[in-house]
Amino acid sequence: MPYELFYWPSIQGRGEFVRLALEEAGADYVDVARERGLGEMSRLMEGEGTVTPPFAPPFLRDGEVVVGQTAAILHYLGGRIGLAPRNEGARLWTHQLQLTIADFVDEAHDLHHPIASSLYYHEQKAEAARRAVDFRETRIPKFLSWFERVLELNPGGDKHLVGRRTTYADLSLFQVVEGLNYALPRTMEWALQDSPHVAALHAAVGERPNIRGYLESERRIPFNDDGIFRHYPELDA
Amino acid sequence: MPYELFYWPSIQGRGEFVRLALEEAGADYVDVARERGLGEMSRLMEGEGTVTPPFAPPFLRDGEVVVGQTAAILHYLGGRIGLAPRNEGARLWTHQLQLTIADFVDEAHDLHHPIASSLYYHEQKAEAARRAVDFRETRIPKFLSWFERVLELNPGGDKHLVGRRTTYADLSLFQVVEGLNYALPRTMEWALQDSPHVAALHAAVGERPNIRGYLESERRIPFNDDGIFRHYPELDA
Repeated sequence: MPYELFYWPSIQGRGEFVRLALEEAGADYVDVARERGLGEMSRLMEGEGTVTPPFAPPFLRDGEVVVGQTAAILHYLGGRIGLAPRNEGARLWTHQLQLTIADFVDEAHDLHHPIASSLYYHEQKAEAARRAVDFRETRIPKFLSWFERVLELNPGGDKHLVGRRTTYADLSLFQVVEGLNYALPRTMEWALQDSPHVAALHAAVGERPNIRGYLESERRIPFNDDGIFRHYPELDA
Repeated sequence: MPYELFYWPSIQGRGEFVRLALEEAGADYVDVARERGLGEMSRLMEGEGTVTPPFAPPFLRDGEVVVGQTAAILHYLGGRIGLAPRNEGARLWTHQLQLTIADFVDEAHDLHHPIASSLYYHEQKAEAARRAVDFRETRIPKFLSWFERVLELNPGGDKHLVGRRTTYADLSLFQVVEGLNYALPRTMEWALQDSPHVAALHAAVGERPNIRGYLESERRIPFNDDGIFRHYPELDA
């Protein structure tokens, strides 16, 4: 039975971290809301047919199991689709990296929505401009330099975040860099110069055959002004 | 060997979710920065003596294992100290609840810091006042009503979030309610009327002997204006 991914059908958003893992693994999956509409997704969130209703998309159904929270989905899937290490300690470390990526993604979202997700960007533009300064000058360098150090310290080599093989954390770091390159191209051009291993990982993941095929397919939703990563030039350096 | 918790010594913050679990379990632990200063914590974050440097406190050391990210620490500890279910599916659900609590906590922090953590509250007071409206009217009710539904749907009964016994998720939900009661007392008085099971869980956890003893001890750092939950009356209803 295919994995069933439940996520908004018109954005990459947080669901994209799961899509990338499923695509890299060549796993059999259904992107439910894109193929069958939003009804099932809403009903599961309301607790119909499950005693573990997810708080928000994305969530994954695998037979009887329903699991929400992007990092928990990847922790669940990782070992099953060959994108997490077998060793328990290394698996926990991979999960920790993903949770830190999730924090980075939250901040990338709040960059354009510092006041409320329920308001439009144009209603919080002044506050976003102020938040952008700190995000560009403090937060992006702090996150990127940490990932750079993790790559340098990896006993399996600086090509991967964990061990000697690609994990879902590598794919997720690719997606954050891809998203920020789109959203803040001028900032990222400078920032990546200080994080050469992160830049190299981003390039290498983009060249992996399954990822490349996916990115070129119709399944990859283009970046747009509804997602997490948005190109508002006034927020860039 | 005792567990070693690394966290800022003068605030409850995110470390408090780990402290509550260790206290409830009666586990042997050292609150390292409070007992031995900040040096070791800084060195570990810089990657000295570990190839898995945490991004930020809190983190836990258990012999050779260093684990960061509050939810991952609790996921690691839960089974070892008797505060997580044995069943794998139930354990994943407990972790998912904790990750949603973490999201709620992030928003409770950004309530008073919508622009940047590196700025003082008084430098972002106007933006905080705007953010507070949405947090009080939309976000608190959304999170509390979800936890209320989770309690109602729990096949083990509405006294616990998961199964029939106290898990670290129950303790963490207690802490969020405790923190918001302190920060936004007028808002919470109304909000909890719509979430009676959440209110009952909060009261019951506070009466557990080990938790009560801890809350009355010197080990419990009082709420203050440096932590996540701050009482700024102008942000309350």
